Amino acid sequence: MIYADNAATTKLDIDAFEAMKPYLLEQYGNASQPYTFSRSVKKALRQSREIIASCINVNPDEIYFTSGGTESDNWAIKGTSLVYGDTRPVLTSQIEHHAILNSCTAIERLGFPVAYLRVTEKGVILPDTLDKYITPQTKLVSIMLANNEIGTIQPISQLAAIAHKNGALFHTDAVQAVGHIQVDVQKLGVDMLSASAHKFNGPKGIGFLYVRKGVNIHPLNDGGTQESSMRAGTENVASIVGMTVALKKNCESIDVNTARLHELETLLITRLEQAQIEFIRNGDDNHIPGNISISIRGVEGEMLLHRLDLKGIYVSTGAACNSGSTQLSHVLSAINMPAEYAIGTIRISLGRDNTKEDVISISDALIEILKQHE
Amino acid sequence: MIYADNAATTKLDIDAFEAMKPYLLEQYGNASQPYTFSRSVKKALRQSREIIASCINVNPDEIYFTSGGTESDNWAIKGTSLVYGDTRPVLTSQIEHHAILNSCTAIERLGFPVAYLRVTEKGVILPDTLDKYITPQTKLVSIMLANNEIGTIQPISQLAAIAHKNGALFHTDAVQAVGHIQVDVQKLGVDMLSASAHKFNGPKGIGFLYVRKGVNIHPLNDGGTQESSMRAGTENVASIVGMTVALKKNCESIDVNTARLHELETLLITRLEQAQIEFIRNGDDNHIPGNISISIRGVEGEMLLHRLDLKGIYVSTGAACNSGSTQLSHVLSAINMPAEYAIGTIRISLGRDNTKEDVISISDALIEILKQHE
Repeated sequence: MIYADNAATTKLDIDAFEAMKPYLLEQYGNASQPYTFSRSVKKALRQSREIIASCINVNPDEIYFTSGGTESDNWAIKGTSLVYGDTRPVLTSQIEHHAILNSCTAIERLGFPVAYLRVTEKGVILPDTLDKYITPQTKLVSIMLANNEIGTIQPISQLAAIAHKNGALFHTDAVQAVGHIQVDVQKLGVDMLSASAHKFNGPKGIGFLYVRKGVNIHPLNDGGTQESSMRAGTENVASIVGMTVALKKNCESIDVNTARLHELETLLITRLEQAQIEFIRNGDDNHIPGNISISIRGVEGEMLLHRLDLKGIYVSTGAACNSGSTQLSHVLSAINMPAEYAIGTIRISLGRDNTKEDVISISDALIEILKQHE
Repeated sequence: MIYADNAATTKLDIDAFEAMKPYLLEQYGNASQPYTFSRSVKKALRQSREIIASCINVNPDEIYFTSGGTESDNWAIKGTSLVYGDTRPVLTSQIEHHAILNSCTAIERLGFPVAYLRVTEKGVILPDTLDKYITPQTKLVSIMLANNEIGTIQPISQLAAIAHKNGALFHTDAVQAVGHIQVDVQKLGVDMLSASAHKFNGPKGIGFLYVRKGVNIHPLNDGGTQESSMRAGTENVASIVGMTVALKKNCESIDVNTARLHELETLLITRLEQAQIEFIRNGDDNHIPGNISISIRGVEGEMLLHRLDLKGIYVSTGAACNSGSTQLSHVLSAINMPAEYAIGTIRISLGRDNTKEDVISISDALIEILKQHE
């Protein structure tokens, strides 16, 4: 099998699994209890927070563990916006993940207004666009660091500066970025940042939200005093430890991985071009390593996905066919992809385990399917 | 070591761990993807939902997986209450878990009123009390099935009937109950029910909310279409499978375990009485098996906890000393525990792994500490 859907989820790092085991099996004490049996889990929690903080260049007490990227995104939006009597608007973009978009719909339903910024054809939110729509009334701006469908990396530091100049908070959904590109929160200048472990070879069901000290945010999960009373619920130490090992390992090999993945991307694109496949590569030159979103003229992405599946190759599509009609993803709609290409969109997302042989197999398979289809 | 804090968390069942392993290591596909690699995880998810549903006598499509009891409680309260322009009040009790109490504080902050019902000295919310305070305006009643500190089991079916008679929804926090007593949702007659895996020998970071079909509830975690678009976030299949194995196993042995735990409770109480320890046993006769909350005259619970800790025995306390002054838990305050007993409260919560020898050691240790203290 060739797994090339690493933007959807990744394989758990074996060292991360081994690090989790003792906290699943022996060190099961509740991290919030005062007795000695919980001392080792408390220590693991503290060390994990320190390591994760250092990976993104923040203080440990600015890291809050969550159940994943979706919770982190919901928390950032709802925790800062749902304030009685304060209906200052939120700004976000049209190409955010649904965790952001649907959190925004939820706050709109409660009477808190939201505006959705346009993007360029490369999927970039231009600083000028934000500058045009932001006002001193804006409460929060949330723009993703990298897009999950087309990989485009946004000019976050410039966008955050514009938000701050106008007195707004700035959040970034960095779920696709953390562990894949260098993420230095101080350079980005954001107030909040979401991440998810299973996108960087950690376990599913765990993630974190960075919240800059001093940001006024309410919990999404109210309850006990865990996470400095900001995120209640018994600490999932095993998964936190697994996430930490995976993140540290991935961060240490970002440069090597990036170079290797860019080579693999070039190989795949070159082979498709040589076979004279008519396609558009989506997204910006500045994108997440390994993300290859292509829109092929005159075919359906779903057909490609299923034919590749039959050959043991796993990728994603950008358009879902529902009872005959084809629904484009919100991202493909936002970048104004020509219709004859849009429905033929697939996302091949290569990860650290993919090889040159994988890429040759993927391109061979794709070319074969397309030639048969002609 | 003797672990007697099973109400705080439990040891992961080894079969549950073994069942999780393949979904951590090999079957890592995203359960929401359409390709064959995700077929086995989809199946595991479906089967887990069916087994859990059958354990509490509901339909599989009424089970929604969450990150644990705290999220389930937050979701039940906020998902039904936060409705624009609808400020009908919520009723709950003074002895709920903080996941409920602080969720209620959060909705109050947003302008949605909440009232907190009194309890008896045994920690019971009397149906008459609810009947007195409920009105046809009440939107939601949330009363826990069993209390975490003193173990008291509430007359939920009567309380739910009163709520329904008045047109209100009824939620129960069953985190301490599920896997420990028979929980039949049809007999209870509740609309929503929260549970947490790590309280019944499942993994931490996973739980579920039962939501009766037809209940009008918004998501707490907005985003993707997972869990029928009601709880977004990549499915944590490994933990869901672990929870399922643990719940099934615990439910199958409830009767045997209950009898055994009641014997152990009697043994412990009898030994303390024989040693002429002056104590009150808290809670109702109808309580969670293994929960032994006792308040000992003239000592501090924290001192007892630390002395027991030195002997390798792990229990909880009901009062925390902060810089000299002692703060009683909200539950001990609500049941009007006499002050000279209250600060000497400890909770010994026995689980399925505790033995008669454990109980003899705990009582011997406790008696020795108290005699030295005299």
